Amino acid sequence: MTSIGYLGPKGTFTKLAVDATFNGEHKEAFKTIPECIDAVDKGEIDIGVVPLENAIEGTVQLTVDYLIHQVRIPVVGEIVVPIQQHLLVRSDIVQKESDIEEVHSHSHAIAQCHQYLHQNLHNAKIAFTSSTGKAAEIVSNSDQPIAAIGNRAAASEYGLEIMKENIHDYPNNHTRFLVLSHQPEKVKIKSEAKGDKTTLLITLPSDQAGALHQILSAFAWRKLNLSKIESRPTKTGLGNYFFIIDVNQAYDDVLLPGVKAELEALGCQVTILGSYSVYDIL
Amino acid sequence: MTSIGYLGPKGTFTKLAVDATFNGEHKEAFKTIPECIDAVDKGEIDIGVVPLENAIEGTVQLTVDYLIHQVRIPVVGEIVVPIQQHLLVRSDIVQKESDIEEVHSHSHAIAQCHQYLHQNLHNAKIAFTSSTGKAAEIVSNSDQPIAAIGNRAAASEYGLEIMKENIHDYPNNHTRFLVLSHQPEKVKIKSEAKGDKTTLLITLPSDQAGALHQILSAFAWRKLNLSKIESRPTKTGLGNYFFIIDVNQAYDDVLLPGVKAELEALGCQVTILGSYSVYDIL
Repeated sequence: MTSIGYLGPKGTFTKLAVDATFNGEHKEAFKTIPECIDAVDKGEIDIGVVPLENAIEGTVQLTVDYLIHQVRIPVVGEIVVPIQQHLLVRSDIVQKESDIEEVHSHSHAIAQCHQYLHQNLHNAKIAFTSSTGKAAEIVSNSDQPIAAIGNRAAASEYGLEIMKENIHDYPNNHTRFLVLSHQPEKVKIKSEAKGDKTTLLITLPSDQAGALHQILSAFAWRKLNLSKIESRPTKTGLGNYFFIIDVNQAYDDVLLPGVKAELEALGCQVTILGSYSVYDIL
Repeated sequence: MTSIGYLGPKGTFTKLAVDATFNGEHKEAFKTIPECIDAVDKGEIDIGVVPLENAIEGTVQLTVDYLIHQVRIPVVGEIVVPIQQHLLVRSDIVQKESDIEEVHSHSHAIAQCHQYLHQNLHNAKIAFTSSTGKAAEIVSNSDQPIAAIGNRAAASEYGLEIMKENIHDYPNNHTRFLVLSHQPEKVKIKSEAKGDKTTLLITLPSDQAGALHQILSAFAWRKLNLSKIESRPTKTGLGNYFFIIDVNQAYDDVLLPGVKAELEALGCQVTILGSYSVYDIL
């Protein structure tokens, strides 16, 4: 049976992404992003799902750094999940908002609901947990009038009631997850792909003014649409950067190989992190 | 007396940055990034210090989003702190590494020391905390053979011994902090500035191929050196982006106003988030 590893614990956004995308496979929670990626690399699991961008439980830096510096596993898919935070309670203990004396959650989730908490639960104490799933677990095990902030998966995992839906301050917040595997034939995603994407890592030959502009020329005159560009330190010291660039199409036979060849001729190092399909979870 | 707010609790990297940069002021810990920024905006504190990049206890997204969407406070300085993680113990309980049965820390700190933990503390249980400071507090209050991963400030704050120094996997990891204030005259930083920087937010008029290339032309032909570029969704929906660009010089009278005028003529929205000095903490 195909096995899927994800960043745990249960009831987190990564688990929600995995459940919405895959069916029937064996699913295993990992404690950290590196542990999950290592397990894919060593073949202990077939597929790994890790957060890439705008995540609650992890940071893009950690995932990107690990994929660049430690292991090279192809990205075979991307899952986009809207961030929806709900107020979760035990309905046998809390009947109305004003009953709530304490709110538990991950600090980023607390921050995402800053306006709501300020306006509606101004007197409640805030308690930080290591994940939104952990917060739901604490509430489910307590007979005190407390609440958790978390997603729908956390509510059903720990038998909590959603007292108030969508309490996050910004409606258009998304988390991107990468699907990693050395065996792309085992990746069977139940929803339909929304489009394709290619992610490139480009290291400049020197830290000179205008170098990035020159690099982007190779994409611009081919009318290749970029959906993301980000500079990151190379970790060999401050002042040296590489770029992560997402192009809105699959790696083709002509245009993207042409970009790669030109940039390499200019002295850049170019790595294709993956060419993959994008899946939206609604 | 000048008051400084920072992202708490005690013993975190933000506190370390504040202590290394400021002298004698009244210092106040805040629970979340938005709370700290709000307090500066309302004048409850004079200066706020919040993580911007590569942070353990916060994410760039949260800080940037809040500064763009909720409040507009000038950035008056940047503090760069190397991330150095140490193994912290109570020396009356733990004498050698092999005594340690459990390691407590924030999940990002655990992940940053992934290789070290794998090689040296393979059998120790991992326990996640809401911050590196919290982990140090737990270890200081326990009579069990446990350890925390955290920085020097956490060790001295909670009276712990540094059993092993620099256990992080990558030596060149830094955290950037922004100093925010409506009263720049109150910001007195004890170390000497390393250089100047200007941060701009640029929103494109439309999501077209090559638009970013056109924007960078305005910087490139003036030979303005960019130290960072990052695209971010505008939150008005997927597919719309703005760019955060750091230029390695102060906002001057000719070159940067020229860039701004040209980009605005092209239909871009340009906001100067700040022009400020950069301070390195060693």
